[in-house]
Amino acid sequence: MTRSEGLVVGVVGGTGHTGGEVCRLLLGHPAVRTILPTARSGAAFAEVHPNLAGSGLDFRSAEQLADRAEELDVVFFCTPSGEAMRRARHYVDRGVRVVDLGADFRFADPSGYRRVYGAEHADPELLREARYGVTELNREEIAAARLVANPGCYAITAILALAPLLRADLARPGAPVGIHAVNGTTGAGNTPKKAIMHAEVSGAMLSYSLEGHRHGPELEAFLSTLTGHPVTVDLDTAHGNFARGIHLRADVHLGAAKSRDELLELYTGFYGDGHDTEHFVLVNTLPKRGELNEKRYEIYPNLTHVVGSNFCHLGLDVARAGSVARVVAVTDNLVKGAAGSAIQNMNVQLGLDERAGLTAYAL
Amino acid sequence: MTRSEGLVVGVVGGTGHTGGEVCRLLLGHPAVRTILPTARSGAAFAEVHPNLAGSGLDFRSAEQLADRAEELDVVFFCTPSGEAMRRARHYVDRGVRVVDLGADFRFADPSGYRRVYGAEHADPELLREARYGVTELNREEIAAARLVANPGCYAITAILALAPLLRADLARPGAPVGIHAVNGTTGAGNTPKKAIMHAEVSGAMLSYSLEGHRHGPELEAFLSTLTGHPVTVDLDTAHGNFARGIHLRADVHLGAAKSRDELLELYTGFYGDGHDTEHFVLVNTLPKRGELNEKRYEIYPNLTHVVGSNFCHLGLDVARAGSVARVVAVTDNLVKGAAGSAIQNMNVQLGLDERAGLTAYAL
Amino acid sequence: MTRSEGLVVGVVGGTGHTGGEVCRLLLGHPAVRTILPTARSGAAFAEVHPNLAGSGLDFRSAEQLADRAEELDVVFFCTPSGEAMRRARHYVDRGVRVVDLGADFRFADPSGYRRVYGAEHADPELLREARYGVTELNREEIAAARLVANPGCYAITAILALAPLLRADLARPGAPVGIHAVNGTTGAGNTPKKAIMHAEVSGAMLSYSLEGHRHGPELEAFLSTLTGHPVTVDLDTAHGNFARGIHLRADVHLGAAKSRDELLELYTGFYGDGHDTEHFVLVNTLPKRGELNEKRYEIYPNLTHVVGSNFCHLGLDVARAGSVARVVAVTDNLVKGAAGSAIQNMNVQLGLDERAGLTAYAL
Amino acid sequence: MTRSEGLVVGVVGGTGHTGGEVCRLLLGHPAVRTILPTARSGAAFAEVHPNLAGSGLDFRSAEQLADRAEELDVVFFCTPSGEAMRRARHYVDRGVRVVDLGADFRFADPSGYRRVYGAEHADPELLREARYGVTELNREEIAAARLVANPGCYAITAILALAPLLRADLARPGAPVGIHAVNGTTGAGNTPKKAIMHAEVSGAMLSYSLEGHRHGPELEAFLSTLTGHPVTVDLDTAHGNFARGIHLRADVHLGAAKSRDELLELYTGFYGDGHDTEHFVLVNTLPKRGELNEKRYEIYPNLTHVVGSNFCHLGLDVARAGSVARVVAVTDNLVKGAAGSAIQNMNVQLGLDERAGLTAYAL
Repeated sequence: MTRSEGLVVGVVGGTGHTGGEVCRLLLGHPAVRTILPTARSGAAFAEVHPNLAGSGLDFRSAEQLADRAEELDVVFFCTPSGEAMRRARHYVDRGVRVVDLGADFRFADPSGYRRVYGAEHADPELLREARYGVTELNREEIAAARLVANPGCYAITAILALAPLLRADLARPGAPVGIHAVNGTTGAGNTPKKAIMHAEVSGAMLSYSLEGHRHGPELEAFLSTLTGHPVTVDLDTAHGNFARGIHLRADVHLGAAKSRDELLELYTGFYGDGHDTEHFVLVNTLPKRGELNEKRYEIYPNLTHVVGSNFCHLGLDVARAGSVARVVAVTDNLVKGAAGSAIQNMNVQLGLDERAGLTAYAL
Repeated sequence: MTRSEGLVVGVVGGTGHTGGEVCRLLLGHPAVRTILPTARSGAAFAEVHPNLAGSGLDFRSAEQLADRAEELDVVFFCTPSGEAMRRARHYVDRGVRVVDLGADFRFADPSGYRRVYGAEHADPELLREARYGVTELNREEIAAARLVANPGCYAITAILALAPLLRADLARPGAPVGIHAVNGTTGAGNTPKKAIMHAEVSGAMLSYSLEGHRHGPELEAFLSTLTGHPVTVDLDTAHGNFARGIHLRADVHLGAAKSRDELLELYTGFYGDGHDTEHFVLVNTLPKRGELNEKRYEIYPNLTHVVGSNFCHLGLDVARAGSVARVVAVTDNLVKGAAGSAIQNMNVQLGLDERAGLTAYAL
Repeated sequence: MTRSEGLVVGVVGGTGHTGGEVCRLLLGHPAVRTILPTARSGAAFAEVHPNLAGSGLDFRSAEQLADRAEELDVVFFCTPSGEAMRRARHYVDRGVRVVDLGADFRFADPSGYRRVYGAEHADPELLREARYGVTELNREEIAAARLVANPGCYAITAILALAPLLRADLARPGAPVGIHAVNGTTGAGNTPKKAIMHAEVSGAMLSYSLEGHRHGPELEAFLSTLTGHPVTVDLDTAHGNFARGIHLRADVHLGAAKSRDELLELYTGFYGDGHDTEHFVLVNTLPKRGELNEKRYEIYPNLTHVVGSNFCHLGLDVARAGSVARVVAVTDNLVKGAAGSAIQNMNVQLGLDERAGLTAYAL
Repeated sequence: MTRSEGLVVGVVGGTGHTGGEVCRLLLGHPAVRTILPTARSGAAFAEVHPNLAGSGLDFRSAEQLADRAEELDVVFFCTPSGEAMRRARHYVDRGVRVVDLGADFRFADPSGYRRVYGAEHADPELLREARYGVTELNREEIAAARLVANPGCYAITAILALAPLLRADLARPGAPVGIHAVNGTTGAGNTPKKAIMHAEVSGAMLSYSLEGHRHGPELEAFLSTLTGHPVTVDLDTAHGNFARGIHLRADVHLGAAKSRDELLELYTGFYGDGHDTEHFVLVNTLPKRGELNEKRYEIYPNLTHVVGSNFCHLGLDVARAGSVARVVAVTDNLVKGAAGSAIQNMNVQLGLDERAGLTAYAL
């Protein structure tokens, strides 16, 4: 299953939050022998990622990595849009499995990419065989794929929140699904900008891209495929006063009114109850007994209970006499929303235990 | 206009965040001579409100205040639901103007109150003459009212965000208005509870009351009156990782597509540009020149720019090809969302300059 | 006392946090008619200080302000080190009172400036007549001074914490005084830097300048003058996970052991109890009755109770059997630590009520 | 080395932050088969520790655990002071290794315990054979000990910060060592109290126990043993605006002046450079080349780089012309400061790889 004793893994673009997080998780992966991150400049690894000081990792250039493609089992691309579609073929052609954490391979065809990213796709052929990697929903495709397009952090969180409802065809046809998502400031990258300095966000929150975030069309494309009919999504986004994690609410107008208990049954049927079925997706079914408290705090998931882990916690409620379902989903934007999903996909591609390297619970 | 040199003002329920805030603002009000807050227990004022240490204020019992009703010009009720409707008449009958910061007088008739608060109204007659106090929208009614029902913090923030669009009848008929609001933890009161301990909210946010917050029906009732036809509101609420302030987004599906510039023109026409018309409502019309930056951070208002002040900052965008208007409104939940509005209403009731005591800008 | 009806005030360097804060407070000052802030670039005032949107203020160049010196009553310098010592004379010579919020005039002689700032002082003559502006401790000098050097934010907070102890000569001779201070991130300026991005400071704190902050020598110089013998200070500094305010602890090894009650008596004797003596300095004398709770949270002041105000709250304890006094002082770094003190000094220079424009209590 | 395939581990007192954290880390420990946490009430494990939902763990009573003592390999006590000294013998007598995360066994003799905790020790005999568990400094004693007293979170962080300096006898004799420590609010327990509600700590920090924290005497006792002569410690403590982690500064007055480079050499000599010697203690030796930046942010460790891990990051500076050494140490209060150290000690007691179960890097 692996070329040698222990996997050799490249990480193209190892200086950002996502690249660092892929390295962090790979360091704890029992099947990984060697991790080879790349960087453009000559920065020292432990200066860029002080949390990984002591790991002994070092940067090389992307060219140096490309020269060693034959040694590699897997390559992760953690690069801005436009890079992976130019460099991925080099690895795929040499039998290296590729997981792209960027946006280059998230649309099924070049026109989708062009519409959202405003540029021509550089490798339409490879795009055709790429598979969108929501592990919980398309394991078999991922297992067979040479290249997996890892979903955007908002997209995967929203998909896990919505899949049971939409698959069961409970949404009112034609009514757009509202997605209201708040991300940590690590989601804004690590280049200094005035808007994301501490004094600006501390004690506040920061709306952005309200005219339409790029994960919106990505989400619509996947959900439409998932359900077999067009799904319209209203996604709005903000940064909260925290560094990591996504707190997302979805509003789905239902075709017919449902009770909270009916929806909980649907969701636990879909994802399993506790750790039985989907290990990484947990539905909050409180209260086990007795009454809901007045503000219902406890029935919605709390970000602090997933940060640092690959879990997605879901909570449910109904409003307007059962005609609107409200789903709250929380994930770590850099783990389940990026590096964790990417490794989960790699595990599936390589036939490993899907949880390998992802056993950490939240702090 | 006042009974003597300087107003004598009672504050019933002076131990909570709202009561403290009314006292704080009254301390800086040029027309106020005496402030008389009440408390149930024998706590010292400066121990309950250490930020007002040095002010010399002291608590008395609600009964002691009632005995001095004849001396008072105004009374603010900062009490939980159910108190004001039992005690307000005592003051009104003695010529004291009343502003109720609680919920007892926010519905036009007893049935609205009964439906939302699950109890009979204790003074339906007084309810009938009470006026709902969004100063910017119904000054004349407020000026004439003996009792003003101060709006809920979410309600007033949403109303200021929506009024121009709804008054101009731009919303698509029948489509519910989505209100997504995040409040500081002062909005959760000052009684210790596990859900709002620091370690639970720090680095996170906290959804609550997703089945329907009580400010929702309050909002629907007022907006329906304002527009002359039924308005349906989907309000969801959360606490953010900050102590003060409301960050609220409103989504309005439009009858006909609009550009951002058209909406900005509508809003500045309604509220004025800068400080010309409505002093306390400011519309962010950036960028003055040139392009919007990629993430558009600067065109949405930031909570830090209103906290501590009576201002409401508004920002606008359009999504889905102009078919959805997105309005961001930020206020200080304890000032414009409570005590500031209450004093603004008092100023109008007494014929004072509306800005008296409310001149502070945000930090 | 003023040249006309209402003061005309210049603010040189109006784009930083401090300049904005001087403008904010002047907007609420009853004796001020006109505020003239300067900026180098052509930025719009309300874009630089969105919290002051609606105020109608506008920038001009420093040269334009200099040309109008004859019209001015007061000028505040909110500029980096090196500017005020070159430009202040222009105003002083024209009868304009000057308050410098920078460091140029904080040392009594040019050698002190040279030692700490590594440059020659440009106006030693003006330096000689400048007075260091801790209003509570040297009112008479300030009243007579044409130029007041406003203390650094750490310095003034530490001075107010230490003055009663040191004036009473209770410190053990020769033992350095330890000052451990944590400042909000507004204290780090508003230029984007990686170290003070939100994702770096959120959920953490950030030590800096541990080899010796420049406010250390400033503090030693003033305290030595105050006490009449050399005082040695060990100052260490950090940024906390908040935007505004200083939380400072001082450790003083005592010549003879004291009880907490003895020290409380000393401090309330020095500053007064409540609002009797020094309006802006309050000593926490809890508990009024009964026992201290186990962790003693309530007897130390909390930053949230002064932010936004010109107050300094002090709390006291003794450790090591009464041989070490521990003083906790909290201030708003931009108000009492900068703009508020500056205006307090201006009030004294002009013979106004010292509290004019500074009546706000904390939020 | 273990009684069976995989360790069976009891966790007495599994409902607090520390007990939950021990469980979390044990879940990822490769040698652990069964985890048996106890609770007094009938609460469900996943409701008390929602971050561990999906783990399948369940509570039993302390009595039920005691009945199964023969099956156990190790027991962790995560109980308030007073419990472990009554229950530990039961396990020790049955060949179960014990790690006490509370304070019962931290003093070498009953008089130390009596002096600090104000009560008689219930098991002086067991106390005599207990060993204080700073793994890096006394591995051999720990390996042989039946009962290990896990250090307090402040104590271990301070010890790691100070050991190289004190062992090398560089401190000025008689001068107290200053320890200034800020802890996350998880350090204040999970019982709701007003002082640690979100609205009180958000945007601030909270001094406490300034008259002397109980970890002070613990620290003095251990450091005196370590150095062979009496060490005096001035410890002051606060909670910062974050949930997890300790940011600690130590001030050591030196017998003879030293440069920063000399101290860095001492520390890297003591702990090793990078991951060579002590895996969990890393010394920040930046800058590798070139100049220090003005504020020196980068040379002091940042809490965010250790939270979630068992690492202690150290940074160094000198002040007052080399006469004062300043050490900054950061740890996760619940990992290296509690549960992580406890498992590190267990690993040593059982002859396992010391890093087993502790391989996670910070987020």
